[in-house]
Amino acid sequence: MDKLSNLAKFKATCPYLGRTKTSTLRTLCTSASPRFPTVSKLTEKATKCPVMGPALHIRSTQMVAGYASLAGSAEFAKIPEHQGINKPSPADAQKCPHASKALAAARMAEDLVHAKKAKAAKAAAAAKPAAAASASCPFASTSEAKPKAATPGGFDYERFYAEELEKKHQDASYRYFNNINRLAHKFPIAHTGNVKDEVEVWCANDYLGMGNNPVVLETMHRTLDSYGHGAGGTRNIAGNTGMHLALEEELATLHRKPAALVFSSCYVANDATLATLGTKLPGCVYFSDTMNHASMIQGMRHSTAKRVLFKHNDLQDLEMKLAQYPKETPKIIAFESVYSMCGSVGPIKEICDLAEQYGALTFLDEVHAVGLYGPRGAGVAEHLDYEAHKAAGQSGEPIPRSIMDRVDIITGTLGKAYGAVGGYIAGSNDFVDMIRSYASGFIFTTSLPPANMAGARASIAYQKEFNGDRQLKQLNVRDLKSRFVAMDIPVIPGPSHIVPVLVGDPTLTRLASDKLLAKHNVYVQAINYPTVARGEERLRFTVTPGHNVEQIARLSRAVDQTFTELGIKRTSDWRKLGGHAGVGVADAKPVEPIWSDEQLGLTDGTAPAVLHPGQKRFVDPRAVRITREKFNDLLGPYTEPLAQVDALNADLTLAPAPLTAASVTADVSATA
Amino acid sequence: MDKLSNLAKFKATCPYLGRTKTSTLRTLCTSASPRFPTVSKLTEKATKCPVMGPALHIRSTQMVAGYASLAGSAEFAKIPEHQGINKPSPADAQKCPHASKALAAARMAEDLVHAKKAKAAKAAAAAKPAAAASASCPFASTSEAKPKAATPGGFDYERFYAEELEKKHQDASYRYFNNINRLAHKFPIAHTGNVKDEVEVWCANDYLGMGNNPVVLETMHRTLDSYGHGAGGTRNIAGNTGMHLALEEELATLHRKPAALVFSSCYVANDATLATLGTKLPGCVYFSDTMNHASMIQGMRHSTAKRVLFKHNDLQDLEMKLAQYPKETPKIIAFESVYSMCGSVGPIKEICDLAEQYGALTFLDEVHAVGLYGPRGAGVAEHLDYEAHKAAGQSGEPIPRSIMDRVDIITGTLGKAYGAVGGYIAGSNDFVDMIRSYASGFIFTTSLPPANMAGARASIAYQKEFNGDRQLKQLNVRDLKSRFVAMDIPVIPGPSHIVPVLVGDPTLTRLASDKLLAKHNVYVQAINYPTVARGEERLRFTVTPGHNVEQIARLSRAVDQTFTELGIKRTSDWRKLGGHAGVGVADAKPVEPIWSDEQLGLTDGTAPAVLHPGQKRFVDPRAVRITREKFNDLLGPYTEPLAQVDALNADLTLAPAPLTAASVTADVSATA
Repeated sequence: MDKLSNLAKFKATCPYLGRTKTSTLRTLCTSASPRFPTVSKLTEKATKCPVMGPALHIRSTQMVAGYASLAGSAEFAKIPEHQGINKPSPADAQKCPHASKALAAARMAEDLVHAKKAKAAKAAAAAKPAAAASASCPFASTSEAKPKAATPGGFDYERFYAEELEKKHQDASYRYFNNINRLAHKFPIAHTGNVKDEVEVWCANDYLGMGNNPVVLETMHRTLDSYGHGAGGTRNIAGNTGMHLALEEELATLHRKPAALVFSSCYVANDATLATLGTKLPGCVYFSDTMNHASMIQGMRHSTAKRVLFKHNDLQDLEMKLAQYPKETPKIIAFESVYSMCGSVGPIKEICDLAEQYGALTFLDEVHAVGLYGPRGAGVAEHLDYEAHKAAGQSGEPIPRSIMDRVDIITGTLGKAYGAVGGYIAGSNDFVDMIRSYASGFIFTTSLPPANMAGARASIAYQKEFNGDRQLKQLNVRDLKSRFVAMDIPVIPGPSHIVPVLVGDPTLTRLASDKLLAKHNVYVQAINYPTVARGEERLRFTVTPGHNVEQIARLSRAVDQTFTELGIKRTSDWRKLGGHAGVGVADAKPVEPIWSDEQLGLTDGTAPAVLHPGQKRFVDPRAVRITREKFNDLLGPYTEPLAQVDALNADLTLAPAPLTAASVTADVSATA
Repeated sequence: MDKLSNLAKFKATCPYLGRTKTSTLRTLCTSASPRFPTVSKLTEKATKCPVMGPALHIRSTQMVAGYASLAGSAEFAKIPEHQGINKPSPADAQKCPHASKALAAARMAEDLVHAKKAKAAKAAAAAKPAAAASASCPFASTSEAKPKAATPGGFDYERFYAEELEKKHQDASYRYFNNINRLAHKFPIAHTGNVKDEVEVWCANDYLGMGNNPVVLETMHRTLDSYGHGAGGTRNIAGNTGMHLALEEELATLHRKPAALVFSSCYVANDATLATLGTKLPGCVYFSDTMNHASMIQGMRHSTAKRVLFKHNDLQDLEMKLAQYPKETPKIIAFESVYSMCGSVGPIKEICDLAEQYGALTFLDEVHAVGLYGPRGAGVAEHLDYEAHKAAGQSGEPIPRSIMDRVDIITGTLGKAYGAVGGYIAGSNDFVDMIRSYASGFIFTTSLPPANMAGARASIAYQKEFNGDRQLKQLNVRDLKSRFVAMDIPVIPGPSHIVPVLVGDPTLTRLASDKLLAKHNVYVQAINYPTVARGEERLRFTVTPGHNVEQIARLSRAVDQTFTELGIKRTSDWRKLGGHAGVGVADAKPVEPIWSDEQLGLTDGTAPAVLHPGQKRFVDPRAVRITREKFNDLLGPYTEPLAQVDALNADLTLAPAPLTAASVTADVSATA
């Protein structure tokens, strides 16, 4: 009972303790910190608190060696601001002038909490430091379910899990998920675990902000009202709705293919499709780009077919390997259009040439390209015949011998540029029907909810009609890249919308990410191994049409400052070392962006104007109207004005700089 | 141009042709029917039309042998009603007294259309019949993308796809998806491809109708407004929201486990978790029930571990196989609580006993049980200690040595009883953290949208608090099963909510399903190989708390009539044959249902009353209030009355038979 009243006292004293579950606190104070095993995790957290932190800091020099290195971390940098406060009291916490920073620190602690790293078993085994920590912990005594004890003589599963996790901690690849809640009406702002703590999001894959597009949300609300939440079954049993069928028609039309099929995600689409094809096609051989996404690698592994790797985007290597197999052998060349972590782009046309020559299927993952490239957003394959596709309009009829037509299988996602959820394949009728009929990962799973399917379709339909978001995104990407280049910040060169900035060290990358969040309210996730190769750790920025010029300018300054503070190598430093990961390479040719000046409207003055603070993105009423009409058959005609669209565009009219280019304005007045 | 004007004329004449895409019609009339290769698919469809059908019927006896057998199918039974009409004209179609039946037939045709079976390649190869069909087809000439020609000397992929599909047609396992749109405000009614054509749904896995629960939808609407549609990233990069974290806490608490983790689906959860465990645990051996779901089988196949099958629910067989391996060998016993296609239930306690004895992990799939069993809906493992869990309340603390506590790993779905989307695992902290850190299918995929996570959590929270839906569902299941038994309809015996009715022949099963839909507006999907073993084909009925007594009575009569009309074997017939698939077995013991009379409130008069026509299901205001409060931190407090709840329950007050039992009424008045 004494322990319990202690607990209540501690919780009342500190806003962090008060908000955290008792069981979690117990775990934290009985677990040793992975980095500083002589202290508990709770103590490690406390060093980040603006009230507790300074007190601990003073003691640390006398007490624990580990504290010194901890003091180098981003949060500890704030400590001097609080030198005068060295004793925790509720009054101090109340009057603390840096309460918001305390909350920012608490946010990270909360994220750690949510990672639920209990480690009780390990602590029991590692014994001493944790025991010492728990001796003084007021939460230590309350009963908690210990992991199940191993059967005597049997395998110790809990110990095994703990060891596997320890490996992740050792090589710094253990992941702490940030709690990020992207606010629909404040895009690109999100709140963290605390609703009042707002940050700018610079790494989401909602590339066009379609997750908050008003016609998407309006369509979803209406679909929810009509059809409820879940699909209620597999596609074969009660889970096949008009929304699914219409979305698949929309996708087939987008890619000008006869058929498309939707999966739970594009991970599942790639995995199920490649596994099924490789297993079914007799003696099939895969030819796989070394940079292919995990989902494709899994799909190939899950089949019985042989897998031959070819060097990233290396046509000579690919051809040499294709030539080693008889022409009649079934072959699949699996590759991507935009490689998401480096922003490089696959040579689609040339791979189609090789495929035709050697009798191979082409399997093209356009996950990071759909919505973003081409005049209708169908991806890079469409973009390569930009004018032809623009002229052909929305019919969905194929353009014979166009590059998109020559690709056999296109896979894409609804979860990135379309701001929705799910993935898909598109191809010939019989190909799609065969996957539909044989792929276990498609057949035996509940289909996605009708409202999400409707939202995804609305997003595709809108983006098919409106080019302005794609253009504005690329203009913003150019802006950020050129600022970084001017500041000697090592952008890994590439022709796409991905803005990867090389750091080259896992701990520095993590620190830079933490510092940008804590100090600048900038959320950009550290990208470490295994997502990228060791030594090529990076920050990966995604810029949307919803980021304004001031945000872009502020971000570049924040990154510049962070690089200086952490002593991260600049482009010029890499150049002196002979170049690394494409950065600072001596005789590198300049990379041409996929979107040309003409396509962006820069040569004829039709480019959309960038956003200024307080402005919201233009929503195209014509595209909204066309999108709405597509749902008339299932949701009934919807003719009321869309209040949000009007409000958004009214803002723009009042804005100092005109947002819309001439062509876009013409569209508006035509439908006003 | 002449062809095009023909096309326009045909489309204007017939409502079916008018609504169907030209490219689809072209495919249909150039493809031979798989069952009757001398006619085109379009002609086969036409036999189902009440206008065209009779005309073709008369000609069929002189012309094509295939027609005679087609005449035996469900739709052709309607033909005599139209004997007088033998010439298609728009006027006839208008005045046709059976227009709704024509639409029902057209619906099936539409579903076929959506299956997109082009078969153009096959038709070209098979040549003669299709060519004959296309000769007279007005849609045949318009240009369409032919599947890509094979590289000379290369493998013919399109031919291969067509052959694989042909196998499916040959063994009658080819699947035609019905277009079923379940209406939130008319549950359990859905419309088909035509919004005016309504059917009763008897096979959805939205087992409790939570997909249309008002607090679920209200929560989703609010979340959509706050956070938009997609999550925008993986859990590691911008896709980890408070809604995800809160849902995982809700799930951990539900199962009284330290941690839970959400995946795109439970297919992915099972696949990723088993594959990761089996690959990581050194020398791991799986022990897998032969009736396990495809997702578990895939997960085991995708690992490097050995897989040992044990006979369905056979403890002796399992023990014999466990005993063959050293105690220290890592072992995973993978099994289910409710087996979804037969309704049998795994011996959870006994398997836990064996697991402890032989040092194995228990991996329990509760996909068809969560939400439906136990006093809080945590599944069969919870149900087995019903009173203890009821007494322990909602704290989430484990009950040591309870069966749910003894199970190491529980997997479940959000897509069935919870009416949402997604799947999950629950277990120890380090187990969950290891899967989170290593499972590719979790790491490299966009997380599910916040609104769906909020909807799923609302559903779980509501069902944790309100037992009435679970009870009413089981009462309805008992009602339907006893009606079937009284009518000598062969229900496969089982203790769960699944109502499988044996047909024992794939074609008869399909015909019964078609006939129930066309004639009785009852949608129950045929379950054929490979979902069940050959010879055990069945109709699988799911009864919800939203089905009323009249619907249940009408369904049983419709099934009875269909069995008679199609000459399907009854229980007594199987008994004469010595029994089959558990039906008509001579000395079978009666099966005790999982939900006892006491638990259903039948012994103390607290059982919920069944629904009568016009009544809607009781929505528990107390559970609604508790659910709402859980979202206060992220969505803000919501205190307005829920109009839908009031309206629904107002209906009930006026109803002739009181719906709510005493205990439930007490709850209502307590919060009124």
